[in-house]
Parts: sequence; structure tokens; C-alpha cells
Amino acid sequence: MPRATSNAPTLEDVARVAGVSRATASRAVRGEAFVSPATKEAVEAAIKELGYVPNRMARSLATKQTDTIAVVVSEPDSRLFSDPFFAATIAGVVEVLEPTDKNLTLMVGNLGFRRKFEAYLRSGYADGVVVISHHEDDHLPRLLEAFKIPCAFVGRPIHTPRQDDGFSVGDRFVDTDNIAGGRIATTRLIEAGCTQIATITGPMDMAAAVDRLKGCKQALAEAGLPLLAALPGGFTPEGSQVKTLELLRDHPEVDGIFVASDLMAAGVLGVLHAQDRKVPEQIKVVGFDNAEIAAATVPALTTVTNPGRELARRATMMVLDEVAGAPASGPVIVTPELVVRDSA
Amino acid sequence: MPRATSNAPTLEDVARVAGVSRATASRAVRGEAFVSPATKEAVEAAIKELGYVPNRMARSLATKQTDTIAVVVSEPDSRLFSDPFFAATIAGVVEVLEPTDKNLTLMVGNLGFRRKFEAYLRSGYADGVVVISHHEDDHLPRLLEAFKIPCAFVGRPIHTPRQDDGFSVGDRFVDTDNIAGGRIATTRLIEAGCTQIATITGPMDMAAAVDRLKGCKQALAEAGLPLLAALPGGFTPEGSQVKTLELLRDHPEVDGIFVASDLMAAGVLGVLHAQDRKVPEQIKVVGFDNAEIAAATVPALTTVTNPGRELARRATMMVLDEVAGAPASGPVIVTPELVVRDSA
Repeated sequence: MPRATSNAPTLEDVARVAGVSRATASRAVRGEAFVSPATKEAVEAAIKELGYVPNRMARSLATKQTDTIAVVVSEPDSRLFSDPFFAATIAGVVEVLEPTDKNLTLMVGNLGFRRKFEAYLRSGYADGVVVISHHEDDHLPRLLEAFKIPCAFVGRPIHTPRQDDGFSVGDRFVDTDNIAGGRIATTRLIEAGCTQIATITGPMDMAAAVDRLKGCKQALAEAGLPLLAALPGGFTPEGSQVKTLELLRDHPEVDGIFVASDLMAAGVLGVLHAQDRKVPEQIKVVGFDNAEIAAATVPALTTVTNPGRELARRATMMVLDEVAGAPASGPVIVTPELVVRDSA
Repeated sequence: MPRATSNAPTLEDVARVAGVSRATASRAVRGEAFVSPATKEAVEAAIKELGYVPNRMARSLATKQTDTIAVVVSEPDSRLFSDPFFAATIAGVVEVLEPTDKNLTLMVGNLGFRRKFEAYLRSGYADGVVVISHHEDDHLPRLLEAFKIPCAFVGRPIHTPRQDDGFSVGDRFVDTDNIAGGRIATTRLIEAGCTQIATITGPMDMAAAVDRLKGCKQALAEAGLPLLAALPGGFTPEGSQVKTLELLRDHPEVDGIFVASDLMAAGVLGVLHAQDRKVPEQIKVVGFDNAEIAAATVPALTTVTNPGRELARRATMMVLDEVAGAPASGPVIVTPELVVRDSA
């Protein structure tokens, strides 16, 4: 590729070198019919010689493709960049898009964000959408269904009734089996001898939080044990710390806690340490995600795998396939595994 | 704003409601001359009534604006998403762009990335560029100068000779004064009584690494002390750990280490702990960045401020101003401060 200069070759240059009119060069560039093979060849040779790149927006108008994939994160930016699960998912999208000619538009936010995203979709600015985080009240599944745009969710979307016209995002997701994950985590506590088990959950407007709690309840019911308490920690370390203090005050007998993310579990361990409750001797803790932090906490966290980067890779490939014309596929469900360390 | 549907209003709808031809409606939408005030008013009323949004690409062709800011990170994705400094800078860009009508295109990578970015710029797809990380061999300053696009660097670009035509990226940056930062960190070690001081640096093809080392050397020279060793740790915890083992082997007398990032310093503390060198009793350590991790290490890190989010906010505002027609401004240099904790 020739070195970039501010005097990038134009379509006029291509036409001159190929010895054809600008209109003919334009038709050849856009791959239209009624261009002779000889002309096409001459124009292609000129393009190659000059290093000409057609104006992308003009080309988009002609091909109806934008070469852009939008990545949507319906969260305040502060959470996006402090939670290693989100960082891993974005890295997964980047990994898949880097060798392609697709660009990545990042849409982050909560307040005001939906209006901007809606205008963005209406302007026909993206070929496809990967949703990395979504809450019930952002109504993203309905919005994407209205636009009938190729899309996939990392994590099962919450509440997606099948549409009459057959276009539904209900199956367009890649996710860990969070019900199974909640069961595995809770079963570990039960088998380690815990009988007074509580859970710190994610926000109940997210499918991952709902499903992990469901799995936890199933495991307890099968063992004939009660659920001491289920307290929403908001998937943040601060939230989980507040709820742990509440838990210790209202249920001092607690001897096992399933915490629905490792980031929250790190916060829980900090509170237990400060309150002189020994882990795992007095209270056992199991996290979720198998994030890097899980190996670094004291004691190291027993947790459940949730491979964010891999989930996002697969969701991005699903969208690229659909953009390329393949029928929508999914869902892809990944089976979680227990990772045993020191906390339970 | 009306609810989105797949039957978004078209220019034809606007023309019909306004009672004008499609060509007239198009001219009015694009703000062209030769449209009577009455017609303009009728078209604007129709646009408002229908909730019409012009096709963004068609509008871009007309206005020569793309409403897109490209954020460039010349790093492998793995580093981008594990280093809290980068996460903070992206959060800063997101914060400034969210309330605007600008979208954010994220360009990440090293191999093959430059070719893609060059094609992207040549296609005229972005109004402006914020560079979050750059190395000498990516030649980003020269590329941006060739395209004469509004831009700003987070962190001083390395080697930017002023161009003949006056368009230079040499001043278009926002940065911490890294020379002053290196001096402050090293002075802390000297004042705490260290006489055998070494430094673990960043990669020497980045201005931040070069400048922090320079400041370190200045402080030592003024105190009449030698620099025991300067070992490049690559701004990664793994790199710093390897270099710390080398340092302890070749210079067992070391009693103070200035580590050019907190992420690397966390790695250094791990090695010192494993080697039974007590911090701060036997060896004192000062980091750089004042990242969240600095408060969480054992012992907590004494470090130097480097407010990534704020630097990125200002760089993004600088680019938006230039896109809006203001003359290029900069540089903005932020004065760093020492944050004293337990490691020195």
C-alpha cells in the first residue's frame, strides 16, 4: 500500500490512468453491470497502481453496507471500565473484528443513551450490533427487533417475547448456563458442610442475576436447606460490601455465601476480614466469573467459569455471519465449571 | 421522539407532507441555497411531525462531517484491557462524547492495524482522532499530519518534527509532566534515605517512559547519587517481575526502586515478598499513575498521580473544538503530585 498523503488519489485520477470517463470508472468501482471486462480490468489496474480507496460513505450508499459493527453497553461508563468481565468481552469483540474490514463503534451509557442509539440505528449507520450488557428497562431487544438488524447478545436478553413476524432476538445470544452455574456454586457450599447459606445477587433486571439465583435456590431445595437471605449487590464491590454488613447483622449464623460475581466476592472477603470472620473456617465463599482477581484475593476465591472473552468472540462471529447473509443462529450455551481454590 | 419502527419515515414522506417535490425536500434537508423560506418552514414542520432522520451517510456526503471520532490504541488488545490506565482513558473519552451527537470508533491493535487505520482515514470516515497509546514505530504522528485531521494525543507523542506546512501534531497533546513525575518519585526515595536506587522503566519507544527515566536521572544527579540500574519492564507486571529478579541478582545492595507504573509496581512487590525482602524496611518502592490498585497492594503503594481519565477528557474536548472550527490548541501539561502510602 502506498504511503498515505493528503493528496489521496481520487476517482478522477483512476479514470485518467484507466483512460475512461469518470462515470465509467464510478460504475466499475461500484461493481455495476454494463461495464465491459476490458474496462473493468483497466480500472482495477489503475486502482491498484494508485492505491485508490473509494470514499467509504459513497460506497456505503451504493452497497448499503457500512462496514461498522456497533457494540452496545447499557451501563454507566464507570462500571464498564472497572468490571473485568466487560473488559474481557470488549477484548473478545476487538479480537474478532481486527483482521476484518469492519470497524467498531462503541455505544456506552444509560441516561440519554437510548435516544442516541435509536437515532444511530435509524440513520442506517451499522451493519450489525453486539450487545454486551443490557437491563430490562433499556428495551434493547424490542428496539433491535423494530430495526431487524443482525445482532447478538452476550448474555441472555431478559424478557423477549417471540415476534409475530418471526424476527426475534430471543435466540440471538451466547451465554454461560447461569442456572447450572448457580447450582454448582451452591452445591459446593452444601458439600463443604454449610447449612446456613445466603447469596449476594446481581441486579434483578438482568438475566444473569435472575438465573444464578434460580440455580442457587434449586440446589438448596434439593438438599432440603433454606435460603437464609438473597441480597442484591448490584454487581459492584461497594454494593456487595454494604449487603454483607447487613447480612452479618441480620443473620450472624451465616456459614456460606454464594456471591454472583468475583468482583463482588472480593468486596465480601474484605468485609469478612475486617469483621474477623475467618474464610473458609467460619464462613465459606464461592464467587462467579473466574476473573483474574479470583486468583489474587486472600484467600483465593473458589468460583465458577464464565468466559466473557470467548462469549463475546462467538457473539461477534454470529453477527458477522448474519451480516454476510447467513440465517440467524443461536443460542450458544456454554457449560460452566467449578474452579476450586481456598475460599470454599 | 417517536418510537422507532422498521418503517422509518423517508424523504418521500417528508416531501409529501410538506407538499413539495422530493428534490426540493432534499435541498431543504441539506440546507442548500435557492430554497424559499416558506418551503424551508414547510419541510422543517414535516420533518418534526414525522420524526424524520436523514440517512446519515447521505448527510455526511453533503456536509463532509461523519459525526465520528476515532479512538486509537496502538497496543495489543490484551494490554489495553488489563491496564487500568487505558481503561480510565477510554472512560474519559466516552464521558465527553456521550452527551454529543458524535459516535466513537475504537481502533485497537498493533499488527495489521496501521494499514486498516490508514484506509479508514483515507475513506474520510472520521471527523477527528484521539490517540490513547502510541509507539515510535507506528508513525501515527506522521500519518495524522499527512491527513491533516483534527487530533490530540493522550500522552506526548514521541519524535514529532514540526512540518513545513505548519500542521504539526507536536503540540496536540495532553499529558502529565512525566519528567517532574520521575523527579518527585525518585526524590521521595532519596529523602527516605535510599542510596542504592534502581528503576524499572516502561518501553523506551514511548515518551512517558523516556521522560520518567529522565526525571529519575535528574533527581539522582542533583543528589550526587548513582543510578544503580534502569531495566525496561514493558509496562506489564510480568515484565517488571522478570526485571526485578535480574535486579536482585545483579545488584543485591539495591534499597530503593522507582517503578514507572503501578501495575508494574504491583508485580515488583510480589517478587520482593517472595524473595523475603521487606518493603519498606529493606527496600522502598515508589510507583506511578495512582491507579486503584495502588491502594490495594500489600504494602499500599506510594505513587505519583497521572489522571488518565482527566487527560483523555481534555484531549477529546480539544479534538471536538477543532472539529467545530476552533484553531488547534495545546499542549496541556498537568503537574503530578506525590501520594504517600506505605511502600516508601
